[in-house]
Amino acid sequence: MRSLAVEPLTCAAFAPFGHVIEAATARTVYPINGGTTQRFHDLADIDVAEGGGRPLLSLFRAQPRVLPFTLELLERHPLGSQAFVPLDPGLRYLVVVAEAATQPPRAFLATNGRGINYRRGCWHHPLIALDRISDFLVIDRGGPGDNCEERRLDQAWLIDTI
Amino acid sequence: MRSLAVEPLTCAAFAPFGHVIEAATARTVYPINGGTTQRFHDLADIDVAEGGGRPLLSLFRAQPRVLPFTLELLERHPLGSQAFVPLDPGLRYLVVVAEAATQPPRAFLATNGRGINYRRGCWHHPLIALDRISDFLVIDRGGPGDNCEERRLDQAWLIDTI
Repeated sequence: MRSLAVEPLTCAAFAPFGHVIEAATARTVYPINGGTTQRFHDLADIDVAEGGGRPLLSLFRAQPRVLPFTLELLERHPLGSQAFVPLDPGLRYLVVVAEAATQPPRAFLATNGRGINYRRGCWHHPLIALDRISDFLVIDRGGPGDNCEERRLDQAWLIDTI
Repeated sequence: MRSLAVEPLTCAAFAPFGHVIEAATARTVYPINGGTTQRFHDLADIDVAEGGGRPLLSLFRAQPRVLPFTLELLERHPLGSQAFVPLDPGLRYLVVVAEAATQPPRAFLATNGRGINYRRGCWHHPLIALDRISDFLVIDRGGPGDNCEERRLDQAWLIDTI
């Protein structure tokens, strides 16, 4: 089985798949509330209106996965984006995506509270929590239509170390 | 100046103003990702479509306020809901709301990672972070129209202890 190298999560590297959600790379920042608060504005394209969709705010509580971890399938949501933001800055997790289900996947290690937003239709592996039970805030789409496709990878990939 | 007592933040007490965002009181919970993750589903009504609005995901970085703290004004967003979720379970903050700008406000202490979603049009004080610089994920409305009204309270209120 081929091993997949784990890359750091950066805006540039993740751009084909969506946005990294973090203050440091916000395009627009401005003070509010009499200057006591900074607003890091509009950090992801929440794209959920297709086919009569609406935004859903949910919480995912994920069991940690153990390495080595075998990647066997990907999924995508053809009708909407899906954002994940860890609810503790100490949580680390893996983000696995692919430009097409037939392409080799790429794996990114998210640290320091960074979130991600998969753009609509982005092939991705279900989120891989590490270390401990991990809570994420999730913003995705509710509404009519089949919004989940799954596909087995042409070959399995192994993540053996990060 | 009159003092305002601080109440614990519970779903029932906060119901006139919006939703408490937490796993413990989710109406719908189901397993996903092969049983490795629990989805606490649809925890708040994200109500941002009015007048051509769209959901915005932003990050607010708030300086902590110091008690005693004087409440002098409220604001509301007539075109959309606004959700705040702390990005660290250790953050405590105060949520001050009122059924009308002419009514006495109520103050709630949010702890243990609980978030809140102000329903559209709910009068509220700008968020009052405590203890330290505090990051919140915010989901509110972008789009045309004037979505912020401010109003001075008929009398100032003091929060002197929590």
